[in-house]
Amino acid sequence: MSDAFRAVSWCDAPVPGVRLLDQTALPGREQYVLADTVEALVGAVGRLVVRGAPALGVTGALGVAVALLEGEREGWDAGRLAREIDRLRTARPTAVNLSAAVDAAVARAAGGVAEVLAFARMLMDEDERANRTLSRLGADWILARTTHRPLRVLTHCNTGALATTTWGTALGIARELRDRGMLDEVRVNETRPLLQGSRLTAWELARDGIPHIVQVDGATASAVARGLVDVAIVGADRVAANGDVANKIGTLAVALACRDGGIPFVVAAPWTSVDLGTADGNAIRVEQRADGEVLRFAGHPAAPEGTVADNPAFDITPARLVDAVVTERGVVEPAAGPAHAAVRLAELGS
Amino acid sequence: MSDAFRAVSWCDAPVPGVRLLDQTALPGREQYVLADTVEALVGAVGRLVVRGAPALGVTGALGVAVALLEGEREGWDAGRLAREIDRLRTARPTAVNLSAAVDAAVARAAGGVAEVLAFARMLMDEDERANRTLSRLGADWILARTTHRPLRVLTHCNTGALATTTWGTALGIARELRDRGMLDEVRVNETRPLLQGSRLTAWELARDGIPHIVQVDGATASAVARGLVDVAIVGADRVAANGDVANKIGTLAVALACRDGGIPFVVAAPWTSVDLGTADGNAIRVEQRADGEVLRFAGHPAAPEGTVADNPAFDITPARLVDAVVTERGVVEPAAGPAHAAVRLAELGS
Repeated sequence: MSDAFRAVSWCDAPVPGVRLLDQTALPGREQYVLADTVEALVGAVGRLVVRGAPALGVTGALGVAVALLEGEREGWDAGRLAREIDRLRTARPTAVNLSAAVDAAVARAAGGVAEVLAFARMLMDEDERANRTLSRLGADWILARTTHRPLRVLTHCNTGALATTTWGTALGIARELRDRGMLDEVRVNETRPLLQGSRLTAWELARDGIPHIVQVDGATASAVARGLVDVAIVGADRVAANGDVANKIGTLAVALACRDGGIPFVVAAPWTSVDLGTADGNAIRVEQRADGEVLRFAGHPAAPEGTVADNPAFDITPARLVDAVVTERGVVEPAAGPAHAAVRLAELGS
Repeated sequence: MSDAFRAVSWCDAPVPGVRLLDQTALPGREQYVLADTVEALVGAVGRLVVRGAPALGVTGALGVAVALLEGEREGWDAGRLAREIDRLRTARPTAVNLSAAVDAAVARAAGGVAEVLAFARMLMDEDERANRTLSRLGADWILARTTHRPLRVLTHCNTGALATTTWGTALGIARELRDRGMLDEVRVNETRPLLQGSRLTAWELARDGIPHIVQVDGATASAVARGLVDVAIVGADRVAANGDVANKIGTLAVALACRDGGIPFVVAAPWTSVDLGTADGNAIRVEQRADGEVLRFAGHPAAPEGTVADNPAFDITPARLVDAVVTERGVVEPAAGPAHAAVRLAELGS
């Protein structure tokens, strides 16, 4: 079961720090990284040892505790501490959860490490509750709008227990559908360049005994056109106030395939990934990652020496293509009109 | 320059056979495979040592000569010879060129090996002429329908000299645009699962000194939405009588991205890839290839042991999304209406 592991947790011994299930080593090896310095934690976040918007939020909050402890040990002044915490806040730019959780944890830093850790634990509990609630709401929404039974779900990237504290967002909805006896199979996009679908989602689904099949990202449109998919469910790194969605590169292609094929495109995200302070997708900074992720695989070159790559980690799916944004506070339907989405998101946020 | 190599040629010594540039070893190594038996040639075609609809056509015609020579050496009767030639004809099912060229070569077999080889050489000459003509027609069509100068072209898979006899189809149009001083850069989809884009197209473009950038297939929609592409040009394994197009998996996603972004989606194919005997895309058999192409890379597992993959090698882009099919006989515009495409294709075919 998915509860058998935690992507992110706090560890007191041998040294206090953040314990991360190393997602770069999966599915081959199940090993953990213990980050007890800001340097180590920022490095791990950058290498995607931990990823996924909700998991990054918890990591950021725990990271503030790491910074406080390291600052005490090393005798940092307030300026140094602030700079180190800022490195943490900006370790990845696209998911709103990271910066938001760091800021919220900093606001509790006056109470000391114990208070920051209590806040981080509360975030974890809230994230799990949010995942379970949005999974029920998402399953209800999808079952009301589809007819094929049991359902064939397509997903992109990893949005399960590895990307959250436990359970999952898009994959949480798939789990909820399975629990209701309504899930046939999950069709998993491998999710280039880093294969979070074939490496991580397939690993989680295999642990849970959920039937699944992996395909290249380019097969999405064909699978939908061939009538092999009833609904696509993906996560989000950030949902803007108008309903535009930033998510893993390739998500926009899933949305276009769903629109063309006439099946629902559903985004599942805890409320912590909704950013009412971001007007629309144009205001979201999309992280550009290293060429090597595209041009090499497992150390082997996939392109001639000297080739240049464009490697945006995320894309922006416009609100008009998003049939539903499912949060624990309720479901918003951006495709019904961005004005509609803006009003409804603001309502849920208030 | 692209003329410095031949993907497919006939070789008389040390033993007569088909000489193939081994595309599975590129871009790392430039090595050749000499296939002097049907078994060896069918194996090479199956492993994609040679691929691309026009190159497969020439390979099929030369393969009939291999079968005749092998049959003489081994004393095959007519039944055995026919069975061996049928293995060749069906070595890959989607590209019409392979079966059509094998059948046309068989019709010349009564004249002996020399006549079959003469036919194959004529096919090669015709393919090169067709490529150069359609490249001019395609460049004219595109320049008349775009405004950004110089042009930023997106392509998928490999359609250059490696996929044809020389020059190329979609990549041939890009080369023609470059020769006219109208090409800014080629944006190359890596083309999972076998990376014909990053391995082969990038290799050809680098040899030609044409600026290019590689991206994951999932980045297509984002690149178009970000305004980084003026036109997409792809090849075809088969064009049906109504204008539906079978091409490398992921092509349909390119077409959907172009439609959503309002830029032209252009298919370049020699007339030998147009199959007026195939009514529409539903009648095209799409080759399903082995799981391992998706689940492993360079010998490394990309998914947990026991994972199952769906691996269709091609998808079908419906005529309504195809702005132009460029052949050496003229340009057809299927998106103007499948009836229009059917009439115009039939005209060009007569």
